[in-house]
This record gives sequence, C-alpha cells and structure tokens, in this order.
Amino acid sequence: MMGSALAVPLLDRGHEVRLVGTHLDREIVESLKSSGVHPKLNYELPPGIEYFFVEELDQAMRDVELVALGVSSAGVRWAGQQLGPWARRELPILMVAKGLEWSNGKLRVLPDVLREELPKSAGAIQPIAVGGPCIAGELARRVETCVVFAGREPATLARVAALANGAYYHVTTSSDLFGVEACAALKNAYAMGMAFGEGIHERRGGQPSSVALHNYEAAVFAQSVFEMQRIVRLLGGDPASAVGLPGVGDLDVTCNGGRTGRFGKLLGLGLGVKAATERMQGATLECLEILAVLKRALPELEQRRELDGAELPLLRHLIAVALDDQPIAMPFDRFFKSS
Amino acid sequence: MMGSALAVPLLDRGHEVRLVGTHLDREIVESLKSSGVHPKLNYELPPGIEYFFVEELDQAMRDVELVALGVSSAGVRWAGQQLGPWARRELPILMVAKGLEWSNGKLRVLPDVLREELPKSAGAIQPIAVGGPCIAGELARRVETCVVFAGREPATLARVAALANGAYYHVTTSSDLFGVEACAALKNAYAMGMAFGEGIHERRGGQPSSVALHNYEAAVFAQSVFEMQRIVRLLGGDPASAVGLPGVGDLDVTCNGGRTGRFGKLLGLGLGVKAATERMQGATLECLEILAVLKRALPELEQRRELDGAELPLLRHLIAVALDDQPIAMPFDRFFKSS
Repeated sequence: MMGSALAVPLLDRGHEVRLVGTHLDREIVESLKSSGVHPKLNYELPPGIEYFFVEELDQAMRDVELVALGVSSAGVRWAGQQLGPWARRELPILMVAKGLEWSNGKLRVLPDVLREELPKSAGAIQPIAVGGPCIAGELARRVETCVVFAGREPATLARVAALANGAYYHVTTSSDLFGVEACAALKNAYAMGMAFGEGIHERRGGQPSSVALHNYEAAVFAQSVFEMQRIVRLLGGDPASAVGLPGVGDLDVTCNGGRTGRFGKLLGLGLGVKAATERMQGATLECLEILAVLKRALPELEQRRELDGAELPLLRHLIAVALDDQPIAMPFDRFFKSS
Repeated sequence: MMGSALAVPLLDRGHEVRLVGTHLDREIVESLKSSGVHPKLNYELPPGIEYFFVEELDQAMRDVELVALGVSSAGVRWAGQQLGPWARRELPILMVAKGLEWSNGKLRVLPDVLREELPKSAGAIQPIAVGGPCIAGELARRVETCVVFAGREPATLARVAALANGAYYHVTTSSDLFGVEACAALKNAYAMGMAFGEGIHERRGGQPSSVALHNYEAAVFAQSVFEMQRIVRLLGGDPASAVGLPGVGDLDVTCNGGRTGRFGKLLGLGLGVKAATERMQGATLECLEILAVLKRALPELEQRRELDGAELPLLRHLIAVALDDQPIAMPFDRFFKSS
C-alpha cells in the first residue's frame, strides 16, 4: 500500500514511475494493469504509472535512478536478494518498511538488514529510510504530508529528498537513521496501548464523547514519547527523532483507527489476546511483531546493564498484555521516571 | 470546572475540602449546595465537599493547609487581591489557571502575575502550577490522570504533591515553572490549528474516517511540539517540558473535541473569524487570548533579536488566520527548520 501510494507524489513530480508487485501482490497488479484501481487502497491511481509483475522485474529496473522499496519487514531479506543483480553504489534505495530485528545480541534497523543481503560487489550501499506520519490512503489522495528521509550519506540523501519533495509531499532530511527507524517501528506498539483507553471506556458503557478516557490516553501518549526517546538512545540514535515527526507525529497518526488501534481497543474491551487476534481475521499486526522483538531483547540488554529493570514500564506492560495475556493495569505510578 | 474537579481527588485522599465560587459562579454554588450537582460538569460531585459563596470566603479559609486556585487567567489578579488577607509563606497556593501575560516587554507566567497582587508582608510566596493532560469532566469522574506540579521551592512542591497524589490522580513534580506554564497556555493555540484539518476534510465533502486529513493533522502536531520547545526556551524554561506531559500530553488531550477544537474546525470549514466566533455563542476561547498575547510579543522579541523572523511559522500562521482573518494555507515547507 505504501509503495503504491508513494508512486503518486513521484509521478506528480514528473518522474517516470514503475510499480512492481511481489508474488503476494498478483491480484493487486492485475487490477492496476487493467483499471488503475488499487483494491487495498480502494482508489484509482492517476494515469501514467506503469505496472509490473515480479517476473517482469528486469523490464522495470531498466535505467532506473531510484529504487523505492515498499515490502513489509518480513520481506526485506527477500527483497535484498531480488535486487542483488541491479545493486550498485550509485543507485539509491529508499525504504518504507518499518521494524526492528534482534540478532547477535543487537537491535538492528531494517536498512542494515537489507544491506546484509545485497552483494558485496555493490559496495557499501546505504539505504535511505522514510519516517514520519503518512497514512498510505491519504498520500495516494494527495493529502498534505510531512515525512523525514533518513540516511548516512548526506549527498545521496539530499539528492533523493530533492527527487521526491513536492507540492504536498514535504520531505525533510535527517542523519539519524537509527532514531527514525526505531520510532517507525515502535509507534505501532505504543499506539496499541493508547487504544486500550477507548476499549475500557466502551466496556464501562461509555459512548464516544469529549468526556471519556482521554486523560488516560494522553498520559500513555506522553509516556510513549518518553520511552521512545530512551529506546532511541539504546540504539545509539538521537532522541530528538522521538519528539519530532518520526516519533510524536507518527504516533499521533497511528492513533486514527488503523489495524493497530482496532486491536488495542479489543484488548481494552477485555477480549484477551486469542479472541482479539481472531477478530482481526489474519491482519498483519506490526505491534505484536515489534513487541516480540523487544521481549527477546530486554532481558539481555538488562543483563549487559544497558537498561535498568525499572525503565520502560509502559513497554513492559504492553508486552505482558499483548504477548503474555495479562490483564490491563496501566502502571501510571511508574511513568515519567528516569533511571 | 477544573477547580471543582480537583476537589474530587483531594476528597478521596481523605482531606477536608471546601469549594468556594467566585461572584460569577453563583448558580453553580447554589446547585452544589442544594444537590451536589455541578451544572457545567453535568455531574454530581461525591458527598463530603463543603460549598461556599465568595462572601463566605473567611469561613472557608479557616485553618486551611492548601489553597487550590481554579480561576481563569482573567481572574488571577482579582484572586490575588481576595487571598491577600490570608496569604503567608507557609500556606502553599496551587494554580490551575492557564495563560501568559505580555507586560513590560516580557512574557510572564500566571504564578508570577499572582505574586504581584499578594501583599509584600506575606513574604516571597511561590505558587505551584499544574500542567499536563487533564479534562475536568474526566477527573471529576475519577478517570486515571497524570499531571505535573511545577514550582520553585522543592520542599513545598514535594509537600503539596504528596497531599494530592492518589489512586487515580498521579502527580509528578518539576522545577520548570516557566516551561510547564508556557505549554499549558500554548496548547490551546496549537490544538486550534490541528482542528483545521477536520474542517477542511468536511468542507471537501469527506466523512470522519481512518482516511481523512490525519497526515496533515499529525504534521501540525509535530510542528506544534517543535515550536513549543522554542517558546519555552524563549522564556528561559526547559524544552523537556514541551515533549512531556505538559506539552505533548496536554496537546493530545486538547484535541479531543473541546471548545478549542470546535472553533478550529469552524475555521477549517472556511467560516471566517467573525462567523466562527458567533457560532461559539460567547464561549471563552483561550486560543484567541494566547494568540493575542503572542501577536503583541513577537515583533518586540524579534527587534531584540531573541527570535528570528523565520521561526515559529505555524504560530504566525495561526495568528494570521484566527486574529487577522487570513485564509488557511499551512506553511508545511517552513516546518521543522531551526533558526
């Protein structure tokens, strides 16, 4: 969805845009080829974009000056292998995948995971990551959107930002790849926690109203930003990313009724993890993926004394509720305390 | 409303609570005395609170150990004069009023305005201010709420926080009186700007949906936090307040459908200031009050080179729209740039 949405501002900037589906996107590409309608965005993309099946990748890759990669976190290694034959230092890669990986005792961002799969002969390619609040369905409809492109090579970063920056797609840049990527991954976990409030309110018989559990939700929001700064520091990133577009901005936009929010609300209603997951009918729940990564990471980080056991009380409670099926009891008294 | 709501957690902590109305609150106090119902909170307060008219102030003030002041910003000087006879260094004052004053070429916080009106014989009383996300109607209904008490005297601050901290009213403390108070005042202006998006979406024929103008709103949210940090620094406060409960948290809660949001949405619908104000039927609009203060302050701060003309593009646009009746054209391309 996000890869397809990104095609719109690139097209509007006058670029030739070629959209390639993975083997999982067969029906989407067929629909786009025949009518221009993206069935998941529920929207007809503007004319001028060319569409390709994954087996037509070599056609699509001819003379490209930028690869924008829209696969989900699970597809990043696969995508790196597919792109191998074309990978070279001069061809920048822009990534919209969100996630963190825990491997070899380290939290790693997806651009670094992708790099592992690219051929060594391609030189040290530094992918650029996109952060900030961007609902794909809104970007496809040309809603004003502010994003951050983050990368380690200033010249490439500036060039790619200039290619994409346009009338309604406002691109700023950041050298803080760790911070921007960590926020993009974490926001789903924290947005799930904010949605507990809505579920609890409804369970108590409340109606949506200006008097509900907004105090509860806002306290969780502020603590989320507090903890995101801490986790960004753990990764060696800049906490300023957590209080800007990638953190505060993306967390805000994620609280507007997507999958994550619906799942969090179901937990707030008291359904329990199994029933709540069933209600989501197989939808990918990024919040559970990132929580599972952090559940593995926290004990080792504590053992190495990079983290104190009293830190991140909200994150620990989200893990307890969403992975270990504990009842919700938000630990407000442990909020806003530094180690 | 907030003063009355605050009576509930204080009562639940086992304190004897006496609620005094101003001369503007006559009907409210009459209703409370006869039935316990607060007509503006639309809620029956729990039994045990004693109610007083302003002319019964001397009865209410007998042997008190804390004064919690719930007047609006316009009433702060009046309240200081009323409290004069009882003011002494040992009697702490807790203030919920939100606002800034521009006088003698300086932005000033309300606790300092109050101090001017207290008798010099009372010694250097340092009022304590409350910040953070707290909708009065929710606090009165015992919704979990996290707030910050801010003050310059650590011992008094700790004592007052301990008096109020309870099962659902979670009090943390801060020495950053300037930062906490600035955020409390500014959030109304910025929340008005976030609500533009909802109005614009509706004007274009959109329905409330997970695809609307959420990208727009979230970008404005992140820029609001960016600018609040800058203004806090202007006042000599700590930018950390703007990214914590007083800034991020209070801004989030203010976007949940109060007066400020309704007014901002009307502007987004294209009504213009006059028509939008009329629709609000005389409701106090704190957003206009704080914007008027800043409209006076900005030129002088720039002249003194404490501020650059390119800074605070969002705030300047909010002033242009809400005070000078200019059309909305959010300056996204000027967002997220330091001076």
